[in-house]
Amino acid sequence: MNVLIVHAHNEPQSFNSAMARLAVEVLEGQGHSVQLSDLYAMGFNPVASADDFRQRANADYLVYALEQRHAVNNGTLAADIAAELDKIRWADLIILNFPIYWFSMPAILKGWIDRVFVSGYCYGGTRIYDRGGLKGKRAMLSFSLGGQTHMFGPDAVHGDLDAMLRPIQRGVLGYVGLSVLPPFVAFHVPYISEQARQQYLAQYREHLLTLDERAPLVFPSLDDFDATLHPRVL
Amino acid sequence: MNVLIVHAHNEPQSFNSAMARLAVEVLEGQGHSVQLSDLYAMGFNPVASADDFRQRANADYLVYALEQRHAVNNGTLAADIAAELDKIRWADLIILNFPIYWFSMPAILKGWIDRVFVSGYCYGGTRIYDRGGLKGKRAMLSFSLGGQTHMFGPDAVHGDLDAMLRPIQRGVLGYVGLSVLPPFVAFHVPYISEQARQQYLAQYREHLLTLDERAPLVFPSLDDFDATLHPRVL
Repeated sequence: MNVLIVHAHNEPQSFNSAMARLAVEVLEGQGHSVQLSDLYAMGFNPVASADDFRQRANADYLVYALEQRHAVNNGTLAADIAAELDKIRWADLIILNFPIYWFSMPAILKGWIDRVFVSGYCYGGTRIYDRGGLKGKRAMLSFSLGGQTHMFGPDAVHGDLDAMLRPIQRGVLGYVGLSVLPPFVAFHVPYISEQARQQYLAQYREHLLTLDERAPLVFPSLDDFDATLHPRVL
Repeated sequence: MNVLIVHAHNEPQSFNSAMARLAVEVLEGQGHSVQLSDLYAMGFNPVASADDFRQRANADYLVYALEQRHAVNNGTLAADIAAELDKIRWADLIILNFPIYWFSMPAILKGWIDRVFVSGYCYGGTRIYDRGGLKGKRAMLSFSLGGQTHMFGPDAVHGDLDAMLRPIQRGVLGYVGLSVLPPFVAFHVPYISEQARQQYLAQYREHLLTLDERAPLVFPSLDDFDATLHPRVL
């Protein structure tokens, strides 16, 4: 299996960065090929702009998704985007490893999605969800957060964790056709003991060794919608 | 009223940029003071990093939120962050104006949140939700998207719009104590006629002139939770 790990933490000594290194070690130990995109180390630029295209379909008016399609078709994506897209083409499994910032991804990782999940390859028109461009590949979130387990749930102060993750797991990963495995979550990380961190790393190792045992999340099927994406009447 | 508009679109001629300009015009026309942070025009850096602090509490190990608190207390935030935070202090109403990217904000705006909504001022410990640091101020989302109205709803292909917006409206704006007004939403923007766009702009003008008539969204009250954020037993 080819695995791409996209990592987004600004402290290489952090627990979150240790999670990314552990994933490389465990998966390579199983004989998989692993590539790591360490976005902070790469100085990755997360800002979607006109500079992302070496040649423009319309040089006078930027419609970002249309220029993505044009650049995919003409091989004129900026070099940093093309390099990341090559890793996506290569990968069977994509792991996003990050600390939760504001119930979502850090901007450097959001911008990796904005710029690299290009229209014309990863999705386009009604090539979404179970007809998305990355169908056949798998993805998984692996993240740490400051909150504790009791802060998430139907009556908890922050509500359901699934609801928090929905725009990412369904709206990004599911949207492009990826089969999304249940996430690995490390709670309360800035405040826990060294022993508790080691326990989390042991759990993450076990999680990585048993990926195939977990059923992917369920998202909409376009079979249930017509060509204009209205629900089919049964 | 003092109004801060934070705008994040990479094409100044776009409909979304016209929305931002219209808001400046309408609100100034009502006698309000308006500041516009046009993130693309400013070349705003969205990447949260060690460079955000002119002096460090711990130079050897970066814990971003702890350094934010230290820098707020010591006046050592990076100049671009301090300038944006001054606008937040000044504002009675904050409008985030952006195109939906991946069921969320473009990275340049997500990074404005990551870097500018600093721990130690905007929130901290249990100073969250209705005890958040920006309590007493209001906020509103104003956004455009490619999807059509029938694609959002309980049985629709993308699910509920409210669910999509939850990490932003509740997880960001509500979290820091802002009173969140219902959003203004322009659907299907890349594909609609010039006439339909003009209709949307007329609706947005009306929306801006009637802000005070709309009830804010309802989020958790910390009165319902104990000091460790467990739900209180009634």
